[in-house]
Amino acid sequence: MKIAIAQLNPTIGDLVNNSQKILDAAHHAVAQNARLLLTPELSLCGYSPRDLLLYPNFIESLTAQLQELAQKLPPELAVLVGTVTPNKFAHLKGEKPLFNSVSLLENREIKRTFHKWLLPTYDVFDEHRYFEAGKKPNIFQLSVDRNSKEKIKIGVTICEDLWNDEQFWQKRSYKHNPLKDLVDLNIDLIVNLSASPYYLHKPELRKQMIQSSSNHYQIPIIYVNQIGGNDDLIFDGNSFAVNQKGELVSEAKAFSEDFTTFDFEPKTKEFSLTPIIHLPQIEEQELFSALVLGLKDYAKKCNFTQVILGLSGGIDSALVAAIATTAMGAENVLGVLMPSPYSSDHSLKDAQNLVKNLGINHHILPIGEIMETYDQVLDPLFSGTEFGIAEENLQARIRGNLLMSLANKFGYLLLSTGNKSEMAVGYCTLYGDMNGGLAVIADVPKTRVFSLCHWLNLHQEIIPNNILIKPPSAELKPNQVDQDSLPPYEILDAILNLNINHHQSFDEIAQAGFDAHIVKKVLKLVTRAEFKRTQSPLVLKVTDKAFGTGWRMPICSRDSALHHCGMIYNQKEFFMTSDRSLKNKNELS
Amino acid sequence: MKIAIAQLNPTIGDLVNNSQKILDAAHHAVAQNARLLLTPELSLCGYSPRDLLLYPNFIESLTAQLQELAQKLPPELAVLVGTVTPNKFAHLKGEKPLFNSVSLLENREIKRTFHKWLLPTYDVFDEHRYFEAGKKPNIFQLSVDRNSKEKIKIGVTICEDLWNDEQFWQKRSYKHNPLKDLVDLNIDLIVNLSASPYYLHKPELRKQMIQSSSNHYQIPIIYVNQIGGNDDLIFDGNSFAVNQKGELVSEAKAFSEDFTTFDFEPKTKEFSLTPIIHLPQIEEQELFSALVLGLKDYAKKCNFTQVILGLSGGIDSALVAAIATTAMGAENVLGVLMPSPYSSDHSLKDAQNLVKNLGINHHILPIGEIMETYDQVLDPLFSGTEFGIAEENLQARIRGNLLMSLANKFGYLLLSTGNKSEMAVGYCTLYGDMNGGLAVIADVPKTRVFSLCHWLNLHQEIIPNNILIKPPSAELKPNQVDQDSLPPYEILDAILNLNINHHQSFDEIAQAGFDAHIVKKVLKLVTRAEFKRTQSPLVLKVTDKAFGTGWRMPICSRDSALHHCGMIYNQKEFFMTSDRSLKNKNELS
Repeated sequence: MKIAIAQLNPTIGDLVNNSQKILDAAHHAVAQNARLLLTPELSLCGYSPRDLLLYPNFIESLTAQLQELAQKLPPELAVLVGTVTPNKFAHLKGEKPLFNSVSLLENREIKRTFHKWLLPTYDVFDEHRYFEAGKKPNIFQLSVDRNSKEKIKIGVTICEDLWNDEQFWQKRSYKHNPLKDLVDLNIDLIVNLSASPYYLHKPELRKQMIQSSSNHYQIPIIYVNQIGGNDDLIFDGNSFAVNQKGELVSEAKAFSEDFTTFDFEPKTKEFSLTPIIHLPQIEEQELFSALVLGLKDYAKKCNFTQVILGLSGGIDSALVAAIATTAMGAENVLGVLMPSPYSSDHSLKDAQNLVKNLGINHHILPIGEIMETYDQVLDPLFSGTEFGIAEENLQARIRGNLLMSLANKFGYLLLSTGNKSEMAVGYCTLYGDMNGGLAVIADVPKTRVFSLCHWLNLHQEIIPNNILIKPPSAELKPNQVDQDSLPPYEILDAILNLNINHHQSFDEIAQAGFDAHIVKKVLKLVTRAEFKRTQSPLVLKVTDKAFGTGWRMPICSRDSALHHCGMIYNQKEFFMTSDRSLKNKNELS
Repeated sequence: MKIAIAQLNPTIGDLVNNSQKILDAAHHAVAQNARLLLTPELSLCGYSPRDLLLYPNFIESLTAQLQELAQKLPPELAVLVGTVTPNKFAHLKGEKPLFNSVSLLENREIKRTFHKWLLPTYDVFDEHRYFEAGKKPNIFQLSVDRNSKEKIKIGVTICEDLWNDEQFWQKRSYKHNPLKDLVDLNIDLIVNLSASPYYLHKPELRKQMIQSSSNHYQIPIIYVNQIGGNDDLIFDGNSFAVNQKGELVSEAKAFSEDFTTFDFEPKTKEFSLTPIIHLPQIEEQELFSALVLGLKDYAKKCNFTQVILGLSGGIDSALVAAIATTAMGAENVLGVLMPSPYSSDHSLKDAQNLVKNLGINHHILPIGEIMETYDQVLDPLFSGTEFGIAEENLQARIRGNLLMSLANKFGYLLLSTGNKSEMAVGYCTLYGDMNGGLAVIADVPKTRVFSLCHWLNLHQEIIPNNILIKPPSAELKPNQVDQDSLPPYEILDAILNLNINHHQSFDEIAQAGFDAHIVKKVLKLVTRAEFKRTQSPLVLKVTDKAFGTGWRMPICSRDSALHHCGMIYNQKEFFMTSDRSLKNKNELS
């Protein structure tokens, strides 16, 4: 029995084109003699439509589109399509009005509809906002071929339904374990339709988990994942099948649409394929591919063909330029060099070398005269004050204005180039270098920015070497380097990782051996920068905790408990003040 | 038996000071011979701590703080305190790790802890992200006075627990109705500890609902609500008590902390007070008070004493200036007038009259020279192109830069002055007039901006009359008025209300009698402006659907279904392009 999987890249809400993708895959499947076609979770509307789901007309359109698709599909093929269905009489039962569903389409009709049991509400997920949990076992029988009486019994799961394996996690996250319930009903095969967003190492984790479950329950599992970027989320694909020993028998591409078929032998519950050995990817390669896809799809789905970014001669903008070049093509990338009187000699040269290495377009727009004019206008109010944050931020904002002017004039997508370490401690200027439609590397810590650039340079110099070796600097005043204001990036990133990704507070981090004074200052900066992050462009998520949908922090708070910093608690300075880029030395003294 | 309610204004996470507020109220209560003190939902940590709840150390601190509070409270008083408690063995049961709880403190110990049953996950609420629902009836018995054997049986509910009255709503939102369950257990009194965020008319709705429930179940109810601004949410207080006929017997203040006591007669289940007649508030007064509180608390809790805003001579900035003056005091408000060559003669004069009427500080910073310098720098790239969006936005961004420079230099909080109608259709400039720490009126539709200003002027001219009567204009090019690009505000606001607050799509709105062509264009603008709204400052929520926490829309989407606009579907222009302020005429032609 041949089973096909279509690893699709839907656009949110684009029912007509998403439907066409499923239809195209169905014709491929039939051409290859497949009996069953699997598509990702919510393949009809894309994951996640979010509050579009609150619009009754959106649900009606989905219902109509599914019906239309059923009639257009080749009748001999069984197709599992991810969609949203109404929960009838929800208002009488006190339930949520929708289900996250999978419909079985065959013979020009919607034969069955299954509902997701486990609804995630952590990190970026809000499924309980919209959906009621399924309660009936999701099973159907399918004849091995259309005219055969031999049938196999298939258990249907939707994404999170497989993420509650107590053996694997050593804890229980939900009351039910749909996998166990299905296995108890003597099924032959589990299919899982997913839209599982990427973060570094997650493809491997996901595979390990499902291999473990498959082996534990002695059941073959076919896992189909969405691919593509949708806003801040990147879906990596990496669909696969495992046999009942948990051995990998088939694998689809990472970060790319894919279509694949394989033979399943119902009697033995075996796939007629030699188990493949999965080679671990290089971390940097995986991460780079993810970022490229995230940018590419954001641009494409928002109808941009060209991108613009500021090139400071520093490593962050260099990395974003390299990502953009891969995603959009060199001819569609415009780098703008905007030197000020504080820019060092090497900055312009380094940026120009980068432009040459990547083969992208560039302009040079010096900002000195604009700075002077602002100074003149502000002089009646600023005279007698010291050069400080206000003047430093102004330079970044002049650059932000110039970039937005070009973006508005010529229709470019502006990319923001800040990294995660900066965004965490607020070492960035709101309405300045934070400007953009997409913050490409704002979930990539600075230490990882370095390792990505070194990896890019493995075979040839892409990032000019001087950019890699010089000390990072914002160059907003003479002889400034990041390390005047921040601890070394290795230490900063380690503290940030414990605090942001592992939810540790002052006590725990200090006890882990970091200098208590530094930990305190870093956590204070993180809290204080919250108001900036709320105004950030979308951040491509590539770690298990990114600033964005999955990070929901209050701004006006005194986190006496979080930081447990008795000494500074209740002091005025502990509060977020105004936009301070924290670029003056005494902030971390 | 005397019962006291403390309508408190906690700061999120500020356990020490929130605890002190409860302690102070307890001493008042004892002084007035009260037996029981009620505080709002999560009174110990403030509503809502959001992802601070993911930090184990935060929960430990809460636990310790509650214990400490129990020991400090006058032992003879029973106090209900809102807090978060751990759900032990959650990881074995597959449950969420926390409860939204109320603890009964008495005699220096934590006597009982009750858990919230109904966890909202709509609009701004994410309670299922953190909390497990309670399952046991929340009841306790309290001796009428400390030495008496006579006891009353009190049912404890937490906010949403009372929001599932089928009779009132004509539908069921949750499976359980804790109120009914409690009444079935023969209790004498229901108390409700709430943190119910404000929107226009909600205080009245809430009261009607609880009066209806009280009357239906023949049970007296005491309702205690949080007050104060916490980020984008404003809590209005308006605590009250109703007797078993649903008649109002006591009412606390709106938009202000309050403490009140009243006598409850256990035998008759009656309050010894004459029922009071509730006078409906003037809408504009209610809304203005809410906005003042929202701004005041945001500034205070973030430690700002002074605010700054741009004064264009238009009605939006005039209204925000009036709100700021009330919230902060005239001496703490700085208006900046930044005329350009396109500014009309009356703009400067109107703004100056406003400054005079309000008695606030002001500066004048003309932007013409800065515009010219930018033009010179951009000329090599812009020459030969037509004056358009890029040039219009640049003016707004120069103003935004000047305001941020002043804010950074002198520590002001910058207020953004855009209204909801603008924010909805993107008639605003990102990194320009959208700049700020708080978007004060971005949930107030333009038509309501007018009505608020007229109300302000009832007794004396506060908003200069010319500002009220001249046609609204962005003044970013000669002779520009808003209505060149937008339909009349009465029509625009009506369409936006149906689309945003009532989740109606193209078909429904057009069928309601609006011109199909205008509806289509408006909905297209709303979709296209999503990327701007994601980068907006916090918006004070004053309607049932504000742009912010409760508005979760995808950016990269083709909402074929939402707008059901077959004609423009699939056209390039339907996508969000770049930041376009849509200020050129042809956008709505």
